[in-house]
Amino acid sequence: MNTSESMASNPLLPSDVAVLRVAEQLYESVAKLPIISPHGHVDPQVLATNQPFANPAQLFIYFDHYVTRLLHAQGFSLAQLGKGAAANLHQDETLAREAWQILCNNWHLLAGTASGYWLTRELETLFGISQTPSQENAQELYRIIDGQLKEPRMLPQALFASFNIEFLATTDEPIDDLRWHQQLAADPNFAGRVVPTFRPDRYLDPRAANWAENVESLISVAGLTGTTYSNYIAALENRRAYFVVNGAVSADHGVEEPYTVDMSQDRASELFAQAISGSILATDAREFAGHMLLESARMSCQDGLVMTVHAGVLRNHSSQTLANFGPDTGHDIPTTAEFTRNLRPLLEKFGNHPNLHLILFSLDETTWNREVAPLAGFYRSVFIGAPWWFLDSPDSAMRFREKVTEIAGFYRGSGFIDDTRAFLSIPVRHDMARRVDCSYLARLVVQSRLTLEQAQQIAADLVVAVPKKAFKL
Amino acid sequence: MNTSESMASNPLLPSDVAVLRVAEQLYESVAKLPIISPHGHVDPQVLATNQPFANPAQLFIYFDHYVTRLLHAQGFSLAQLGKGAAANLHQDETLAREAWQILCNNWHLLAGTASGYWLTRELETLFGISQTPSQENAQELYRIIDGQLKEPRMLPQALFASFNIEFLATTDEPIDDLRWHQQLAADPNFAGRVVPTFRPDRYLDPRAANWAENVESLISVAGLTGTTYSNYIAALENRRAYFVVNGAVSADHGVEEPYTVDMSQDRASELFAQAISGSILATDAREFAGHMLLESARMSCQDGLVMTVHAGVLRNHSSQTLANFGPDTGHDIPTTAEFTRNLRPLLEKFGNHPNLHLILFSLDETTWNREVAPLAGFYRSVFIGAPWWFLDSPDSAMRFREKVTEIAGFYRGSGFIDDTRAFLSIPVRHDMARRVDCSYLARLVVQSRLTLEQAQQIAADLVVAVPKKAFKL
Amino acid sequence: MNTSESMASNPLLPSDVAVLRVAEQLYESVAKLPIISPHGHVDPQVLATNQPFANPAQLFIYFDHYVTRLLHAQGFSLAQLGKGAAANLHQDETLAREAWQILCNNWHLLAGTASGYWLTRELETLFGISQTPSQENAQELYRIIDGQLKEPRMLPQALFASFNIEFLATTDEPIDDLRWHQQLAADPNFAGRVVPTFRPDRYLDPRAANWAENVESLISVAGLTGTTYSNYIAALENRRAYFVVNGAVSADHGVEEPYTVDMSQDRASELFAQAISGSILATDAREFAGHMLLESARMSCQDGLVMTVHAGVLRNHSSQTLANFGPDTGHDIPTTAEFTRNLRPLLEKFGNHPNLHLILFSLDETTWNREVAPLAGFYRSVFIGAPWWFLDSPDSAMRFREKVTEIAGFYRGSGFIDDTRAFLSIPVRHDMARRVDCSYLARLVVQSRLTLEQAQQIAADLVVAVPKKAFKL
Repeated sequence: MNTSESMASNPLLPSDVAVLRVAEQLYESVAKLPIISPHGHVDPQVLATNQPFANPAQLFIYFDHYVTRLLHAQGFSLAQLGKGAAANLHQDETLAREAWQILCNNWHLLAGTASGYWLTRELETLFGISQTPSQENAQELYRIIDGQLKEPRMLPQALFASFNIEFLATTDEPIDDLRWHQQLAADPNFAGRVVPTFRPDRYLDPRAANWAENVESLISVAGLTGTTYSNYIAALENRRAYFVVNGAVSADHGVEEPYTVDMSQDRASELFAQAISGSILATDAREFAGHMLLESARMSCQDGLVMTVHAGVLRNHSSQTLANFGPDTGHDIPTTAEFTRNLRPLLEKFGNHPNLHLILFSLDETTWNREVAPLAGFYRSVFIGAPWWFLDSPDSAMRFREKVTEIAGFYRGSGFIDDTRAFLSIPVRHDMARRVDCSYLARLVVQSRLTLEQAQQIAADLVVAVPKKAFKL
Repeated sequence: MNTSESMASNPLLPSDVAVLRVAEQLYESVAKLPIISPHGHVDPQVLATNQPFANPAQLFIYFDHYVTRLLHAQGFSLAQLGKGAAANLHQDETLAREAWQILCNNWHLLAGTASGYWLTRELETLFGISQTPSQENAQELYRIIDGQLKEPRMLPQALFASFNIEFLATTDEPIDDLRWHQQLAADPNFAGRVVPTFRPDRYLDPRAANWAENVESLISVAGLTGTTYSNYIAALENRRAYFVVNGAVSADHGVEEPYTVDMSQDRASELFAQAISGSILATDAREFAGHMLLESARMSCQDGLVMTVHAGVLRNHSSQTLANFGPDTGHDIPTTAEFTRNLRPLLEKFGNHPNLHLILFSLDETTWNREVAPLAGFYRSVFIGAPWWFLDSPDSAMRFREKVTEIAGFYRGSGFIDDTRAFLSIPVRHDMARRVDCSYLARLVVQSRLTLEQAQQIAADLVVAVPKKAFKL
Repeated sequence: MNTSESMASNPLLPSDVAVLRVAEQLYESVAKLPIISPHGHVDPQVLATNQPFANPAQLFIYFDHYVTRLLHAQGFSLAQLGKGAAANLHQDETLAREAWQILCNNWHLLAGTASGYWLTRELETLFGISQTPSQENAQELYRIIDGQLKEPRMLPQALFASFNIEFLATTDEPIDDLRWHQQLAADPNFAGRVVPTFRPDRYLDPRAANWAENVESLISVAGLTGTTYSNYIAALENRRAYFVVNGAVSADHGVEEPYTVDMSQDRASELFAQAISGSILATDAREFAGHMLLESARMSCQDGLVMTVHAGVLRNHSSQTLANFGPDTGHDIPTTAEFTRNLRPLLEKFGNHPNLHLILFSLDETTWNREVAPLAGFYRSVFIGAPWWFLDSPDSAMRFREKVTEIAGFYRGSGFIDDTRAFLSIPVRHDMARRVDCSYLARLVVQSRLTLEQAQQIAADLVVAVPKKAFKL
């Protein structure tokens, strides 16, 4: 076999010939299926306004904190990469070209990483660039990409259509008026389905920055008066309803630990008042946050929003970087997660409720087969979240399949989640997931653990039926 | 290579041709060796009374809570699957046929799981059924299986012989009179060796349901009078001796955490009295349970029973399901386990005692190479328990070998443990273990890490010599 | 393919033909590169005095507690293996021959282990022995090896040259006068670069045995008078400076947990006084140790010594073995490690300091991709330590690459670290790392995740550029 041919034709598929043949067959049957993206961070304004992307640096560096963090570790400042209030990568072409040059000079740092794989494939499939970026060709590549970005085929809505995206969920502030979603929905030239996601973290945990002010805004936006616990709950329900009306199918919860508490309304009301006044004890703040996670599940049982939980990250590890460059700048660091004990109060109450879908995402891969798959193998509400963030990469995705399938099969998962801000990376990410899943299925076929017919059905279901079921589409 | 041929001939073996050839050679040399099953949950009454199995649903659903939990997660009630006091899957053919229909309708849910693999292989090897169960063929399959279950070759004792089981241990209550074991031992038509296992959990931990009543029963069955600490210890020793006389080789301890405490007899006696009276503090109850685990090791040093510890499960996660359907209904959920610190008091005291064999089973695979293998690589008493429960499946078993072998070699393990209630699954489970081990060994041969001669010896030892040593057979 | 040929020619390389061809090509390009060994435990006296090794038992058993522990677990006493004050394996040939006989009799215990692989390869490559050691050939092998040990080519300095070691760091006591290093540096016949490493554990943690006495010695050796906190800090800085002058490039910290605390000098001074007087609370002792780890980072920022942290081992698990045979006798047992929270105070303060290189080694492989790689992917100071100790073996090293590369690429690591006392094993260990890395890279090439050119550059960089950068060589 010619290695270069193999590289060109079968990225990520297994090398073993027997498995490869089956994997290719499976992959061909799902490669063209539409993309369902029920959780991610694309900015709806980008799609609604449908303006050209500014330049290669904004597109491939600014929006991708996987890339900025590795360049930061190498010694470059985030300001050089367009981060921070002073920088304006969008309009400052000199800065943009310099940032792009830094990326190309240091392309070797991305070798083997998920980001390196996305970027290489995007350059190849979207811009026809097969050269490895380097110090020498950086400005030439900039010119080529920048030129293409001005073509009509590269406008966000045109890309949305050519990417064959059937469903895309963004992530939104509870107090957001969702105007861009409304504009998109009303746009006669845009046929795609783009919906918001309710993300209430900074209203649910008294330990969040400016929690009391956040709560006051929330109550006010909901048209209520008075910072009481009942108004707080009503305001959350009100805003969830507003999201539902605007198409939302899920509410997303990012928590350091998925701790839940079953608390009386009286006690909750009492702790709420203490939290608003700033007098709450740290231990009680944790209890209240645990109560609100359980309360969110109750609301999901009522309004039907799928509840996604992303657990196990210590956000903003570097206070100085947070102060200088804001959040989401590459220093959110995973930590252990625990689901079996933490979620028990919630699951005791709503675990088998027919209206609850609770999707558990973990950055601690040890929980995949120790806790998450066993829970999803019993509780009707629990679904296994796909590999996420640092683990959203070929080898990690394969370990995910190897660890959860033997316990919970193929039908208790979320389907692939791209979770990305980087709109252009959506197709290559979903393509990666399909390649990995087909490779895994192919091995099971060759090892007589599945028939080819079973594997073909499963490969298709993982792309369409499984996410549609988990997210109630 | 024709994939279907490969499927028919080499289930689970590696696809790579170089490794496959060695694996086949190794597997052939061990495929027919007898089965040694030193820990499991087969009901001795089934073997002693030697009655035909009732029907396919009882056989493949009722006894297999790996199956019932996945169907429960899909939305079926446990009652529909024959669980609960009201159901009688044994005698109610309508219920049995409906449960079987549910299983077949939802066969895809089991694809890729350990249960799906066992069931498929059992249908094939025991009943000659190679069709995939489905909505259409469900009742026809029921008819075929039900018919065969009435044949003499399918009686429990006949299967025991045809399975080539050399040794089988059941799991029993300390107060059990072991009548079925005695009947089996006295049965002139039954040549197999079937022994009980002492499983004292509900007598050792004051936090167990009805602990005080359990202890009173134990003391009473041992023929002693007075609920004192010394009678309690004497009763345990007495019942262990009764088990030894009836053939037992091991005592099994299922614990949420393998916590051990070296406590004075005075303190233990004091806490025992508090526990009996119900006045013990939660923290002291944990201490007492930790003391009793260490005390059990002391008894093992004296009476020679191998001590097995199964750690890291939170039992009966769903209180409502427990109340309605009892324990062992699919909602025992793993959690982290810790051995290095928890077992230190026990190992400081008995870790190198020549009479103690302490086999550590963990559902937290992170402990395999972090804690269990390093302990077994030093302490003479410690053996590495095989992958268990949720991890008793092809890929998990391969990870087990990959993680423990480089640290502790092949001779510090328990040998394969089927740990099953499902009698018919015993051969395919042991066959799976042999296939995985031979695949692993074959790779080491091809990578020049073992000679073929070494691998052949090890493959055979893993099946016979290793479990015989660990369980003192 | 002939399996024996494969075994002879390609140890550890992948079996799949497509990957194997690329792996061979990559391996050939790095096989002869020099060895850089920036962390290990070779005794500098051995090199300085350049005397022949005593005998096979001393060489392969005494210095290798990976071997002694497995023989101990099998039931042999450490005394039989030459450990303890009474034994003298160096001079007592009867004891040496008996220990060697035990090892050969039990060779099967090492099959599949890292030690078994090292020893087999050393016998083959250094002594031309391809027979598997056994009861029968033990004394004959002893004779062959012993004879060769007397040849000039087997003197330590000759081996150092033939091993092509470019750089070797030992591990040394802070109060050591480093005479052997000075003698080596002054030796006109020795061209190698051998440097000490500052290892201050027993001076930094008040919970260490004899901590107060250790501190007094340290202050005294530094030429200071008075057991004050400021003299203590000055003495540490003084000794670090002495090590720097004598060529040291790093300071090594072995800790049970990498806990760090940012404490005021006043508080530190107060706790120091309590610790010296023996009145310190256990919780405060932990705080003080955490402060001293952070303080060590501060010193590294000033004097430039690379800071290596080896975390997650409970040392001397068996008190009785410690009392009878001393430390490093096979019963240091890993436990969970936690870096994200524990290191935060240190990283908040020095995480992006240009002069700090902080290399994190973990025996808890779950932290590789959950904590260590994410930290190294952002903080400029953080580097990912190679697999260590129990994890320094082919399959573990492969998992390491699979887990960290997708997150942090190839350029945030330490390079391979042999960490060995066993001088003769250095080449086979580095060779193993090169083989594993080339196997991993080859798969990425075949899967189109890297070009062959990228892989070739990375393979070479992993051997030379990466450790040189991490250790500032």
